[in-house]
Amino acid sequence: MSVLTTEAGADPADEEPPDTGERHRLTAVTGLAALSLDAVASVAYGPEAIVLVLAAAGAHGLGFTVPVTLAIAGLLAVLVASYRQVIAAFPDGGGSYGVAKTHLGARTSLVAAASLVLDYVLNVAVAVTAGVAALTSAFPALYGDRLWLCLLVLLLITGVNLRGMVESAKAFIVPTVVFVGSVFVLIVVGLFRSEPVSTAAADGHASALADNGTTVGALLLLKAFASGCSALTGVEAIANAVPSFRVPRVKRAQRAEIALGAVLGVMLIGLAVLISRFHLQPVAGVTVLAQLADASLGHNWTFYVIQFATMILLALSANTSFGGLPVLLKLLARDNYAPHVFALRADRQVHRHGVLALAAVSGALLVFSGGDTNTLVPLFAIGVFVGFTVAQAGMVRHWRSARGPGRRGKALLNGFGAVLTGIAAVVVTASKFEEGAWLIVIALPLLVAVFETVHRAYARIGERLGLGRIPEHPHRDRSVVIVPVSSLSRLTSEALTAAASLGDEVRAVTVCYPDPEDRAQLHALERAWAQWDPGVPLVRLTCGRRSLGRPIAAYVREVSSAEPATRVTVLIPEAEPERLWQRLLQNQRGAVVAHAVRKETDAVICRLRFRLF
Amino acid sequence: MSVLTTEAGADPADEEPPDTGERHRLTAVTGLAALSLDAVASVAYGPEAIVLVLAAAGAHGLGFTVPVTLAIAGLLAVLVASYRQVIAAFPDGGGSYGVAKTHLGARTSLVAAASLVLDYVLNVAVAVTAGVAALTSAFPALYGDRLWLCLLVLLLITGVNLRGMVESAKAFIVPTVVFVGSVFVLIVVGLFRSEPVSTAAADGHASALADNGTTVGALLLLKAFASGCSALTGVEAIANAVPSFRVPRVKRAQRAEIALGAVLGVMLIGLAVLISRFHLQPVAGVTVLAQLADASLGHNWTFYVIQFATMILLALSANTSFGGLPVLLKLLARDNYAPHVFALRADRQVHRHGVLALAAVSGALLVFSGGDTNTLVPLFAIGVFVGFTVAQAGMVRHWRSARGPGRRGKALLNGFGAVLTGIAAVVVTASKFEEGAWLIVIALPLLVAVFETVHRAYARIGERLGLGRIPEHPHRDRSVVIVPVSSLSRLTSEALTAAASLGDEVRAVTVCYPDPEDRAQLHALERAWAQWDPGVPLVRLTCGRRSLGRPIAAYVREVSSAEPATRVTVLIPEAEPERLWQRLLQNQRGAVVAHAVRKETDAVICRLRFRLF
Repeated sequence: MSVLTTEAGADPADEEPPDTGERHRLTAVTGLAALSLDAVASVAYGPEAIVLVLAAAGAHGLGFTVPVTLAIAGLLAVLVASYRQVIAAFPDGGGSYGVAKTHLGARTSLVAAASLVLDYVLNVAVAVTAGVAALTSAFPALYGDRLWLCLLVLLLITGVNLRGMVESAKAFIVPTVVFVGSVFVLIVVGLFRSEPVSTAAADGHASALADNGTTVGALLLLKAFASGCSALTGVEAIANAVPSFRVPRVKRAQRAEIALGAVLGVMLIGLAVLISRFHLQPVAGVTVLAQLADASLGHNWTFYVIQFATMILLALSANTSFGGLPVLLKLLARDNYAPHVFALRADRQVHRHGVLALAAVSGALLVFSGGDTNTLVPLFAIGVFVGFTVAQAGMVRHWRSARGPGRRGKALLNGFGAVLTGIAAVVVTASKFEEGAWLIVIALPLLVAVFETVHRAYARIGERLGLGRIPEHPHRDRSVVIVPVSSLSRLTSEALTAAASLGDEVRAVTVCYPDPEDRAQLHALERAWAQWDPGVPLVRLTCGRRSLGRPIAAYVREVSSAEPATRVTVLIPEAEPERLWQRLLQNQRGAVVAHAVRKETDAVICRLRFRLF
Repeated sequence: MSVLTTEAGADPADEEPPDTGERHRLTAVTGLAALSLDAVASVAYGPEAIVLVLAAAGAHGLGFTVPVTLAIAGLLAVLVASYRQVIAAFPDGGGSYGVAKTHLGARTSLVAAASLVLDYVLNVAVAVTAGVAALTSAFPALYGDRLWLCLLVLLLITGVNLRGMVESAKAFIVPTVVFVGSVFVLIVVGLFRSEPVSTAAADGHASALADNGTTVGALLLLKAFASGCSALTGVEAIANAVPSFRVPRVKRAQRAEIALGAVLGVMLIGLAVLISRFHLQPVAGVTVLAQLADASLGHNWTFYVIQFATMILLALSANTSFGGLPVLLKLLARDNYAPHVFALRADRQVHRHGVLALAAVSGALLVFSGGDTNTLVPLFAIGVFVGFTVAQAGMVRHWRSARGPGRRGKALLNGFGAVLTGIAAVVVTASKFEEGAWLIVIALPLLVAVFETVHRAYARIGERLGLGRIPEHPHRDRSVVIVPVSSLSRLTSEALTAAASLGDEVRAVTVCYPDPEDRAQLHALERAWAQWDPGVPLVRLTCGRRSLGRPIAAYVREVSSAEPATRVTVLIPEAEPERLWQRLLQNQRGAVVAHAVRKETDAVICRLRFRLF
């Protein structure tokens, strides 16, 4: 780190800054690995959701698995194309928030931001619980401790993300590749089989297939489509985190987005084809993916590999939220909708406060849900669909005001996608309303209200601070420095030296207590002071009750009111011990005095650290 | 609270201080109520311990209940007489620690202090678990939540003690009186009966009586005696808390001590007589006290009153530790064996840090023992007996060097008591070694080592600080004040005004980041600064990485090394918002800068609070 000091007014020579942290940023490949986990992991429960709905219509309904999945893949293609355009138009990241802000007005953008926030938080909670649930299905003995396991996993992921996103991307490449690779192998091998190799996992479990199926109507297909849309969560993650990519950011992010769409589409369609071919039925207690592994590869070590990869990937898909939410919070903070602390970046390109806030809220959700996935799964898809709809609606407006060829086609594409995802959002909300979607219906407006309150507070504070206006000229007041002392030592000498440098007048104060022991101590101090004769008066503050800070604060107020034109400063000296644990030995007097003075007066508080060794 | 300011050198007119908090202190009666809970509550398990040991010898062994209890009562009398003398000799409280320090040397006093600390902590844990266990015996449905119940009770007691000891004494008078009163009623009524009225509680439970009893030998009697000595825990509590009594402290404390001995002795002997008369046998799952209540009063509402009173009293007997330990820690802190923060007293005569430390450690013990009494009960008697032995040995020495009549007799009394409690300590340790006494054998020397380490650290620090020596004269350096700024507002103007008052030279610094957005912000700031022209230069610190505190700290070091004779000060301005929640909106820049400057430089750090409203 080079620190170049220049005087104000020197002409800035806009050269390329030496080190902007590029090596901490993502390439297209590492970006895909770090940000695609959520989308890829949803392959584990997406097809299952479709099959569960269609099973209500019996074996006939299950025949519609592939068509419904193709429709979802189509929506996926539209979404990926949309977001590819969003990335180009909004290289600052922020995704639907950025689009909405530019084209749809402040309030809609807040709705998009709120839904994104909810989605990120719920995604962490759901992914962690789903991953742990997969683990406990393989090892039922762990079921009792699942909440602790969830919290442990959350802790691990938080730790990795605090170290920095690139490190976490590198950590997650292997599980992603293993999972995607094994699913591809599963699909390819399965395509060569006509019969399931094994049904070991599903044996002995009750089938969830309805005997007298309802007719397959449009409503059922729509529900299946909406449920299956949960496989699309996570597609927007790359667009939200564009600033984390290396230069050239837009191109790299677009490449990653296309790759994601391709991988996801192939997996979904491949699994749907196999479900159809093997006539798989949903079975209570065993995931469809597990049945497919059985059917395609056999109940051997490959089965367990896939289960483990699924667990690890689900648990880690929480990582996409840790990638996206801090960036979103930073954008909100920059627009004064969220506390500015989220825009504060420390070293290593990590938004520490955003990461910690996300971990805290997710942890609370985990505790309250008791580690149970079922409560939370329906909810988090809603937020994502709202975000999709808003983003694509905003893109329609974008093309209306843009120029260039093919914009009508692009607008049509985005509009069609917006309608589809809007319908999906409404369907999911309506069908899951009593199971928890009401929480979203309440939380979303609440979050928007919070954003607006923060914005108003900042406006007020900004007005008061006179931001944007030239303030008064500074002037110089006479200054009095007050130094609390309790005993005579090198520290006292150092404190008075510092005080003399800072103030026109220095006064030392000490508080006297009524106990005989304390009185004797005071007399000894006064005698030693007289002998020392430092040229600074020692003022005795008598206090009837044992209180340290309040008499000193009261004295400060006395001095301030006696001499209004002076600035009163309190200098608090503290000895810095040799070892860290020795800080426990400090008597906290400094903290007590500082607290009282800060609470009850307007004095400037100066802390002097005197290193003993 | 009156604050009288006098100049140093004024003759202190040693008049009676106006308000020394006397009304917060204890009379003999309230002192008995507040500090006797532990001793009185041990009546609930003391006789039971004796009977359990003697039952190994069958019905014949049980016949020795009264003789063994009489021996214990004798030891009680010796102890009470001893401690009456300790109170007079050591009115500062501290009990065995004070005695040992004066007469037996530093290390022995630390052993006594360590054993007392362990005893206090274990007492809290045991009392709370025993009280909750009694509750769950009456209401078995609560058994699953006993750990949470324990922590809740601990929280309540901590809260009451943080408010102040007198308040807690008043809160605890009623349960103590109810318990003692009901036990007295039980004894008196029982003396008029020749047969048990009811055996309802014990019916259906297996008797713990051995059929072929071993012969009653001296070893068995000794073991019974040692076990029964657990009824004597808590006798020293009054002597440890003498400073909490009202003037005249010594006489009031002595009266309370004698009263305690009388009450305890009568209860123990009375219960032993009834056990003998009714030929009670120990029964698994039902306490001896419950059986006595049945036998004496019948299985009716009085039975439940006694059970409830027992539960409440046991839970509250933890209170004696909250009375004694903070005082002990204060004494240790005064002698530099414990962190000085324990000697810091806030308002209302409460040793806040001592109370909180005790609550924290007890809470940890509760969690680790899972709310189970049995692990901890054997251990806490050992610490107390060690303390008894040390105290009485010290008193023997005291009488050797004292003058006055009857000192030989007094010394003999104390010596006899010391031998008895020493034997008891050894017996309990040996018989319970594997059940947990090894923990004490490790923890005690460990605590002593901690005390000595703290003492050595304070000695080193005191040497470095030059305590007791007259330090150098203070002098005046030239001072440079550095003010970090990021934008122009009223706050900046206020900060520069304060800085001008404090320093001979003021410099404003701002950190520049490489992002284009930040660069534009910087240019805007520099333009506005030029327009404002405050007479203070704005220094630009360029930083390649996004770091706020470190460039500023580096600049401070530059200035310090460039001009060694100046004192560099960093003034950090912060706006104080209107409402408390708005503090969340602050961007934490001040804290980041202060942290970096504190860590990497020796500059004085000044915080300026600017109230916006």
